[in-house]
Amino acid sequence: MTRMNRQIVTKHIAAIRRELNRRKISCLIVTRPANVTYATGFMGEDSWAAITKTRVYLLTDSRYAEQARKECPSCPIVERTGSMAQAVAKLAARLSSLRTITVEKSISLADFEALTKHVKARLKSVAGIIEAVRSRKHGAEVAVIKASASIAAQALQRTLPHVKPGITEIELAGTLDFQIRKAGATNSFATIVAFGPNASRPHHQPGKRKLKRKDTVLIDFGAKYKGYCSDITRCFVVGEPTAFYRRVFEVVERAQAAAIKAIAPGVKLTTVDSAARDVIRAADLPVYGHGTGHGLGLEIHELPFLKADSKAEKLEAGQVITVEPGVYIPGKIGVRIEDDVLVTKTGCRVLTRQCPHSALLPG
Amino acid sequence: MTRMNRQIVTKHIAAIRRELNRRKISCLIVTRPANVTYATGFMGEDSWAAITKTRVYLLTDSRYAEQARKECPSCPIVERTGSMAQAVAKLAARLSSLRTITVEKSISLADFEALTKHVKARLKSVAGIIEAVRSRKHGAEVAVIKASASIAAQALQRTLPHVKPGITEIELAGTLDFQIRKAGATNSFATIVAFGPNASRPHHQPGKRKLKRKDTVLIDFGAKYKGYCSDITRCFVVGEPTAFYRRVFEVVERAQAAAIKAIAPGVKLTTVDSAARDVIRAADLPVYGHGTGHGLGLEIHELPFLKADSKAEKLEAGQVITVEPGVYIPGKIGVRIEDDVLVTKTGCRVLTRQCPHSALLPG
Repeated sequence: MTRMNRQIVTKHIAAIRRELNRRKISCLIVTRPANVTYATGFMGEDSWAAITKTRVYLLTDSRYAEQARKECPSCPIVERTGSMAQAVAKLAARLSSLRTITVEKSISLADFEALTKHVKARLKSVAGIIEAVRSRKHGAEVAVIKASASIAAQALQRTLPHVKPGITEIELAGTLDFQIRKAGATNSFATIVAFGPNASRPHHQPGKRKLKRKDTVLIDFGAKYKGYCSDITRCFVVGEPTAFYRRVFEVVERAQAAAIKAIAPGVKLTTVDSAARDVIRAADLPVYGHGTGHGLGLEIHELPFLKADSKAEKLEAGQVITVEPGVYIPGKIGVRIEDDVLVTKTGCRVLTRQCPHSALLPG
Repeated sequence: MTRMNRQIVTKHIAAIRRELNRRKISCLIVTRPANVTYATGFMGEDSWAAITKTRVYLLTDSRYAEQARKECPSCPIVERTGSMAQAVAKLAARLSSLRTITVEKSISLADFEALTKHVKARLKSVAGIIEAVRSRKHGAEVAVIKASASIAAQALQRTLPHVKPGITEIELAGTLDFQIRKAGATNSFATIVAFGPNASRPHHQPGKRKLKRKDTVLIDFGAKYKGYCSDITRCFVVGEPTAFYRRVFEVVERAQAAAIKAIAPGVKLTTVDSAARDVIRAADLPVYGHGTGHGLGLEIHELPFLKADSKAEKLEAGQVITVEPGVYIPGKIGVRIEDDVLVTKTGCRVLTRQCPHSALLPG
């Protein structure tokens, strides 16, 4: 796994502490894995962080101790032997000035009850603090997301020569994943490869279906590099597309362009969402059931979520979101185009331009 | 993704209901993803199940509705549009005879609080019911785990010709993963490939290190097939091993054999654990810091856990566990041998025999 940049982590801690100070939280127990990574740089599993006014502790076990010392050189490591709750209780006893400990609400009920049992300080819980901080990326994070998108784009480029009649969805997905890996990254999620009408299922899992002449291909994939995700969907046709496919593709592309055009700080999430849906509705094509996009960063799905019911939330500068409208007609067709877009101070910037929207493949 | 067998799911429901009846639980809300799969056959994400005396409901959203109807033909599908808590509240209102709803303790605190707000029935929580049922596999499950192990073994066999000086850890991991995929399975976890001293970190992540002549290779990998995991570790040497490597390998193999020999129903987990550690200690080699093994099934790590502090727990017939002692000397050597073992009525059976423990590779 590629490591997270030290300076990035330092910025994160500063941003989190501003938020904790504002809410008068003197100690936050971080349990959500991506939040632990954000606050410490640690990429392993089964570990928590404790953020106090002066320190960020990493609570882990012997399996990850060596990795933790490498990935989090500035965090004191608490190597637990008993339960996580016991480790927190022990740390809290050491930090005797702590009256109240605040825990992320993403903690499991079982772990929260164990904390209640072991920890003497008063326990509070809070939702979404680090998630909100994470949604606003700084320049160094955007650079890594861009690098992750470049790796994904290049992996697709190297995979395209393998898109030939006879290859299965599974083989094509495996070929693409291998390219992502060779570039020193991992998948940001399980690659979707869908041939022909399989593409009408937005979450299709690659199967043994073989590519035919004149078939359509949908690939939804991404790289995870230095902790950060990219997420791209591209559609191709082997040979000449039908007139209907061409029309659907053109409508989806216009829908995406309309949504991207709407993106700027202060704009309501629902405004961007409906910009895309309106184009598809106006073309008399079925409007997709999924969201128009989602934030991405350390997680493949994170704040904000662009959905029809996103209420009054507004875009903020620094957010990186996917824009991915689609048209799905079961048994017939599925087209989705997805790019990753940075909300800038004045509008937005597409981070996945190096990956062309479409390519015709020899039939 | 390969689908779970219908008859397997029917058996699971029966086993869970016996446990619920015994504890007088009239409705269990299942939130842990592997437990949802176990009770319904559903392989997607972000979904819960509700098990009543007569029905198993699947609560999901539009993204997964089509998949749910295919994978869970006997479950009524509750397609939610609002939050999961609202969907549970709506279902509970429909099942008006329900006075108490019991929720798995693995639920997040946030979700539990939302349920408290929305659900009118009394809320209770409980830990580990389905996890305990899941730990005892029936014959059909064992057959699938065995098939998953065969896929993994065959994938390794097909990968070995690529183990040549110059290949990187990442490339070797990618080659193996591609073979697993071509067999119609996925990885049960991120493949570990460690060359030379890298193997001294039990959770090493494959990097760009190239294989050298006389290098050692550790591969820890598994397939996930029809929902079930296998987990195998093998060690090789390119060319002739050193006398020290040969000795360490022989000790680890003896430690594993001692642990396997100890496996039978009613035997304490700690007995199996120390059987392996004792052999390594007696050989004056450092005793590993991780557990000796873990259950596996729908999850790669599930009950039971064979650790030095496993207390009074005992093995039960039907459990499938890994046995994976190792010797690690940082900067020098890492050897681990891992097989998957079924606890039978009278003793045990190794499910990964088709994967030979060691192979010498041309140097």
